Amino acid sequence: MSTASASAHPNIAFIKYWGNRDHELRLPANGSISMNLAGLETRTTVRFDGALAADALVLNGAPAAAAQVARVSGILDLVRGMAGITEFAEVTSSNNFPSGSGIASSSSAFAALALAASAAAGLQLDEAALSRLARRGSGSASRSVPAGFVEWRAADTDEESYAVSVAGEAHWDLVDTIAIISEEHKAVGSTAGHPLADSSPLQAARLAGAEQRLAQARTAILQRDLAALAAVMELDNHLMHAVMMTSQPALLYWQPPSLAVMHAVPAWRAEGLLAGYTLDAGPNVHVLSAAADAAEVAVRLGKLPGVLRVMQASAGGAATLA
Amino acid sequence: MSTASASAHPNIAFIKYWGNRDHELRLPANGSISMNLAGLETRTTVRFDGALAADALVLNGAPAAAAQVARVSGILDLVRGMAGITEFAEVTSSNNFPSGSGIASSSSAFAALALAASAAAGLQLDEAALSRLARRGSGSASRSVPAGFVEWRAADTDEESYAVSVAGEAHWDLVDTIAIISEEHKAVGSTAGHPLADSSPLQAARLAGAEQRLAQARTAILQRDLAALAAVMELDNHLMHAVMMTSQPALLYWQPPSLAVMHAVPAWRAEGLLAGYTLDAGPNVHVLSAAADAAEVAVRLGKLPGVLRVMQASAGGAATLA
Repeated sequence: MSTASASAHPNIAFIKYWGNRDHELRLPANGSISMNLAGLETRTTVRFDGALAADALVLNGAPAAAAQVARVSGILDLVRGMAGITEFAEVTSSNNFPSGSGIASSSSAFAALALAASAAAGLQLDEAALSRLARRGSGSASRSVPAGFVEWRAADTDEESYAVSVAGEAHWDLVDTIAIISEEHKAVGSTAGHPLADSSPLQAARLAGAEQRLAQARTAILQRDLAALAAVMELDNHLMHAVMMTSQPALLYWQPPSLAVMHAVPAWRAEGLLAGYTLDAGPNVHVLSAAADAAEVAVRLGKLPGVLRVMQASAGGAATLA
Repeated sequence: MSTASASAHPNIAFIKYWGNRDHELRLPANGSISMNLAGLETRTTVRFDGALAADALVLNGAPAAAAQVARVSGILDLVRGMAGITEFAEVTSSNNFPSGSGIASSSSAFAALALAASAAAGLQLDEAALSRLARRGSGSASRSVPAGFVEWRAADTDEESYAVSVAGEAHWDLVDTIAIISEEHKAVGSTAGHPLADSSPLQAARLAGAEQRLAQARTAILQRDLAALAAVMELDNHLMHAVMMTSQPALLYWQPPSLAVMHAVPAWRAEGLLAGYTLDAGPNVHVLSAAADAAEVAVRLGKLPGVLRVMQASAGGAATLA
């Protein structure tokens, strides 16, 4: 019997992941770049135990549904295979932020699971191997393994597709102010959504420019150039949602208050308050600004109709054993 | 001195026009299909008079701005050239619907102008020639010349790009219920917006599928198949707005209540109320349904937050001298 605990932050992508080259392996259609969100975290404990008759999962204090257990067992199977063990595991995981809040909890959850499970099994995986393992549970989880500002590489093989840190969390005092618009679960989650990307007539055009946008975002991060980051981030975000809303069936994740934020942020920028927005596969809007402007951004977002509340996070570190 | 009066209906496009092959000639990047809107109309009188020192334009009872006079003079110049006359003209035009209401008044205005001006100049232009002339003032005006359900052909020459009736106004008792969300003028009008289409990485992909969507819409109209029309209309609409929101600068015409309608209509459809939506370069939403369902659609739209009021129109006839 052996146990390990790990924690990881969720992340927000500036250059988005949407669509896969290989759904089973979660090899993404394009590379992506994100920032880990400090303060928000999933903490997961894995205990392999020969006395267990099956894998068990307790999520935020309650037994998980069968589909969630199966997804976790998929990662545990990979770990058992690498470690040459057969014991089932008890996994206990909790988030310090609400699930279904539009903050991708699967990113932090599978990053923490990959680290805790591999350590509990006696493996010492390097960062790339951990990122690859986390990727198998949720693509965006690959980005929650390295620290700070992170790029996940697209590739044709499992071996080559993992995330690396572009810059550590101390590199740039960027703050993500999240306008929470809905806390309901998404009607179509990311795992179900990715296979629809190729049904959009726009996905190929979106992918054709991805390398250029990745380079622009990478440079903007390294140069701490928020105006440049905002421009490419908003374009990339519109491209992803354009693909979503033209897939079959159409996925329209924006809600009316999302659009209010999307109109407000460029108007604030025109007034001199530098910020940029992005949305994941959900209605909540992430507004990136300098730390010095974050309080003002929070006040303004809080006044917009339909914004329930705001959360804030600066750049977070790597997944860690704890 | 000679005078003629004409009236024309605005139209709502099911397959959208966005982007030009030739901006000066208003040769569109792709073909489009629309329905004239009965009950809504522009009525225009043109009087050529050798005593005038310049063209004059009275719009809805008030002298028009210089830019509007210049745009009208462009059409009058074409008419004078065809008729071999040199007199300036006084043009009096009024709409029975509010300008800037998201109902493209330029479509009915330039269709009525083309007919009134050519008749006042003693020309007897056939429908194709009138449609081509109207096109020079506003692309969508080419579609307000023929009757009912109308297709405007894309082509590389002025001679070949005009609109024809796919089916007359009596063919199908479709009703357009328009959710009026804003009566303000658009920040970026269509004439300024079309040149931006090519700055979107998605325009080429949108154009690549246009012929297929045109064929689907044409067939849906001929077969009076609203489910098929709704599917292709909403896809085409999302494709156009995808191009708009990914152009540089980004054009985000939707407002929060627009999105409320866009979520509501598919939900109603799932309940059995068959309808489809489309938006022009503005926030108002056009909801197409069978006449038998139009009252229910109007009631439901009127209850959505941010919908100021609704207007309704069935299929309208051709531009006519009056």
